[in-house]
Amino acid sequence: MKMAHLMEDEVFLAYSTYATIVILKMLLMAPMTAYFRITRGAFVNEEDVAGKSEEEKKKMLRLNPDVERVRRCHLNDLENIVPFVVVGLLYALTGPDLSSALLHFRVFAASRICHTIAYVGALPQPSRGLSCIVGWVVTSCMAYRVLSVTLHL
Amino acid sequence: MKMAHLMEDEVFLAYSTYATIVILKMLLMAPMTAYFRITRGAFVNEEDVAGKSEEEKKKMLRLNPDVERVRRCHLNDLENIVPFVVVGLLYALTGPDLSSALLHFRVFAASRICHTIAYVGALPQPSRGLSCIVGWVVTSCMAYRVLSVTLHL
Amino acid sequence: MKMAHLMEDEVFLAYSTYATIVILKMLLMAPMTAYFRITRGAFVNEEDVAGKSEEEKKKMLRLNPDVERVRRCHLNDLENIVPFVVVGLLYALTGPDLSSALLHFRVFAASRICHTIAYVGALPQPSRGLSCIVGWVVTSCMAYRVLSVTLHL
Repeated sequence: MKMAHLMEDEVFLAYSTYATIVILKMLLMAPMTAYFRITRGAFVNEEDVAGKSEEEKKKMLRLNPDVERVRRCHLNDLENIVPFVVVGLLYALTGPDLSSALLHFRVFAASRICHTIAYVGALPQPSRGLSCIVGWVVTSCMAYRVLSVTLHL
Repeated sequence: MKMAHLMEDEVFLAYSTYATIVILKMLLMAPMTAYFRITRGAFVNEEDVAGKSEEEKKKMLRLNPDVERVRRCHLNDLENIVPFVVVGLLYALTGPDLSSALLHFRVFAASRICHTIAYVGALPQPSRGLSCIVGWVVTSCMAYRVLSVTLHL
Repeated sequence: MKMAHLMEDEVFLAYSTYATIVILKMLLMAPMTAYFRITRGAFVNEEDVAGKSEEEKKKMLRLNPDVERVRRCHLNDLENIVPFVVVGLLYALTGPDLSSALLHFRVFAASRICHTIAYVGALPQPSRGLSCIVGWVVTSCMAYRVLSVTLHL
């Protein structure tokens, strides 16, 4: 196992764990969208409602507010989790303290789980806004650290 | 070439190859969207139809089902290929067997190519659903392996 | 600091800098969207307009062209910056010349900044189209180099 160098570093192990957790959370949005599409009977592609009568087709090819809500949450995940994963990797390579790194990773993962619950559950604001901002600030802090260590324009 | 350590590892070479292939596939969705926008005459930004008469503008600033189909396929790529690329990197660093890694990478790449053909070609279900699920399961398997090796909460 | 190997490589430092810059640029689209949503009074979630009268709610739950423009720009960032970040990482690991790598990274970062200005400012075409294509070509060139070095199917 020549490649084990990275995997011997505790910060990198922590990064791997939390990056995988938030990516898995994002992956779960796909079956959640499918679940809402099927239970709400709201599809978008002609081929998904093949074999139905013309009248039924018209009814099923429509937008549903619950489906759109899950899809917006999924897009927000893409917009925030992907930057975290990229910046987090570079941040882990700058050799931060383990405790400091864990703090960043844990706060981010918690903020995204809260965000999903607040979004899909349509909880009153500012629950969703706040959890989104917390995650955003964590990623920005890590980006600041990466730039201050590596700046090479 | 100090950095060659990673690039001497066969699993990492395989990862680099397949990650680049699926990213290139995703990049091709952009010219495909442009092609459909131009041939179908369906634009979304005012500045894209500058210099046309008012009547023509109204006709060209509209949604077209073929364009929307390609855009949905592109978004689905983002939702699935980006997690694969991230989890696949960490998976490659956990030192799996080359044959096992190649199996994961090949099945994923094939599933995404099938998915694009099924989506853009509007093939009858379950071709699109199945190819999407296969890719999703491959990424989840790799995520499971990463967590079981690195778990460091 | 065992992990410092990567961070001692000048090409990798340059990659880290530019990847972080373009990710930060993408992160800035979130507050920009929030700014336009608030100043234009155009929201999409029921809970964002809680506490208003029914009539006001109807007015505020609508699409606004400026908000949609920023959101399209954000999605275009995801579609182009994420591939750059992934392919750029692998490209940096293939050990290119520093000058050649810097050229790729600088042109890409400049193209995305121009793209955002052209998109959000609704500048006349082909400013937006051209800047998007330049970034796309840079990523494709790096992908070609990665494949030619690592090809391992």
